[in-house]
Amino acid sequence: MSRLSETYPPDRVVLREVGLRDGLQMVDRYPSTTAKTEWLHQESAAGVGHFEIGSFLPASSMPQFADVRQLIDVCDDLNVHSAALVLNDRGAVDAVQTLVGEIVTVVSATEEHSQANARRSQKEAIALVGRTVDLARNAETQPVVHVGISMAFGCSIAGEVDPDDVVRIAVACAEAGANVIGLADTVGVAGPDQVGDVVRRVKNELGNVTLSIHLHDTRGMGIANACAALDAGVRVIDGSLAGLGGCPFAPGATGNVVFEDLVYLCERKGFATGIDLEKLFSVREIVATEMPNEQFFGGLPRAGTPRQINWRA
Amino acid sequence: MSRLSETYPPDRVVLREVGLRDGLQMVDRYPSTTAKTEWLHQESAAGVGHFEIGSFLPASSMPQFADVRQLIDVCDDLNVHSAALVLNDRGAVDAVQTLVGEIVTVVSATEEHSQANARRSQKEAIALVGRTVDLARNAETQPVVHVGISMAFGCSIAGEVDPDDVVRIAVACAEAGANVIGLADTVGVAGPDQVGDVVRRVKNELGNVTLSIHLHDTRGMGIANACAALDAGVRVIDGSLAGLGGCPFAPGATGNVVFEDLVYLCERKGFATGIDLEKLFSVREIVATEMPNEQFFGGLPRAGTPRQINWRA
Repeated sequence: MSRLSETYPPDRVVLREVGLRDGLQMVDRYPSTTAKTEWLHQESAAGVGHFEIGSFLPASSMPQFADVRQLIDVCDDLNVHSAALVLNDRGAVDAVQTLVGEIVTVVSATEEHSQANARRSQKEAIALVGRTVDLARNAETQPVVHVGISMAFGCSIAGEVDPDDVVRIAVACAEAGANVIGLADTVGVAGPDQVGDVVRRVKNELGNVTLSIHLHDTRGMGIANACAALDAGVRVIDGSLAGLGGCPFAPGATGNVVFEDLVYLCERKGFATGIDLEKLFSVREIVATEMPNEQFFGGLPRAGTPRQINWRA
Repeated sequence: MSRLSETYPPDRVVLREVGLRDGLQMVDRYPSTTAKTEWLHQESAAGVGHFEIGSFLPASSMPQFADVRQLIDVCDDLNVHSAALVLNDRGAVDAVQTLVGEIVTVVSATEEHSQANARRSQKEAIALVGRTVDLARNAETQPVVHVGISMAFGCSIAGEVDPDDVVRIAVACAEAGANVIGLADTVGVAGPDQVGDVVRRVKNELGNVTLSIHLHDTRGMGIANACAALDAGVRVIDGSLAGLGGCPFAPGATGNVVFEDLVYLCERKGFATGIDLEKLFSVREIVATEMPNEQFFGGLPRAGTPRQINWRA
């Protein structure tokens, strides 16, 4: 069995907890390494097995991710899968020298956003995917390479995004050797029919490539969009504890789709997650103590799991 | 054209604002009649055309609905559709003497809940539907009769609910002459596949009866469940401004599915609502002033509508 099919078995749903990365992307106050370690320990004990835990970027620009190497080791000790973001060659070189299980990189769905956000063309971003894949293939640890296509459902700069462009970029990333292709609703504008449509188009073109979906609940569509992605065959879904992580273009907006509610969605749709929601609720306390200014979202933790019905898959 | 097809045209989606009824069901502080009137005026100006505005119950037990007759007249003046709840014969007799456009009554999906909540059997509740239909047919105003099947997706007392029971009750209500059959996730436990399944079963049995769906966002599934109901052919959806209205079985839980987010869902799925979301956001201010202890939910009002993409149907 390959590392990919061990990490993302095609016959089950995997929920990726991205709170430690995307949830901390924009905050000015963030948990200590000790608290992050406790976060990982407790979520791991609750049954969460996949974590995006930081970025390989200079600590001077992103101090909240300065401890990425330590958290990779924590994940290794806990025997859970770790993923970290790299946005340049330096980061990729650094990443393959660690025990990280997955390297995540990003290509924008629009040339305008690529230039404005990463100061490079889409073509250059795809070339970085290729170089990252080469590094990963030559690494002892054989990390999975995951490319997120940002702005896949609408762009903060270019506006509407042509699904054909998303398919074209997905194909280019797959040709460059990416193991997982992610579709990201970076600014939280997607609707469920659109999500289903784009997923189906990419799947039609790429066959059984592993697809992931990264959703923001900015307009309240997060769970409905996750549902549509599942219906269209996606089996890897990002979420963050309490919906941490806002929208850079809408201060005060809701953040990533709520991890706890995703668990309920999956179970009610017949996909067993193996995750203990009650244990997950208590992880919020660590995060709340460390980030007292953050808003916490999600229906499940307020109401609790239903006692009278069997909601488990 | 009948009153029913004027009120609920089968070829378009109608969103029913139930904030003035279900949103006030459990509160101890509620808006003045003047503020409710302003709420109706402003939402009507935003394009909302269907309101559930109270109950015909003794003011001594439900003082928040003591002004139901005045609000019916406000709706009549505004030329919007009004609906009000009746739970007994006295209420039905009172209702048909007003200009109310729709009488809503309730049958529980389970005998246990029917006895515990309404102190009558399901059979007695269906007999009340029949008597209400007779009164409505003999009334000059010819109000629509809408029966909500509460606990249709899970019951706070009986637990799991057999979809066959829901179908059986829906058929009995239709035979008793109900114009609209509503499926209510009263305790907010449903998942989207379940919603689609139950809707399809009822539609298979009842052909083109007008179906409505009433959802609570208790476990964060509200919008996903609305999406599933639309996909299964439902065209009448309840929601409340800011998600007002909690869950009697889960203090602090989220309430009805958020009306503003429903508008976005419908537009993104190709169903034009004619509703101006920016105007709707400002209605929150009235409600917030009158009910300062209520929590407000919803992604849209925090983030605003997307500027760069055409999200309208």
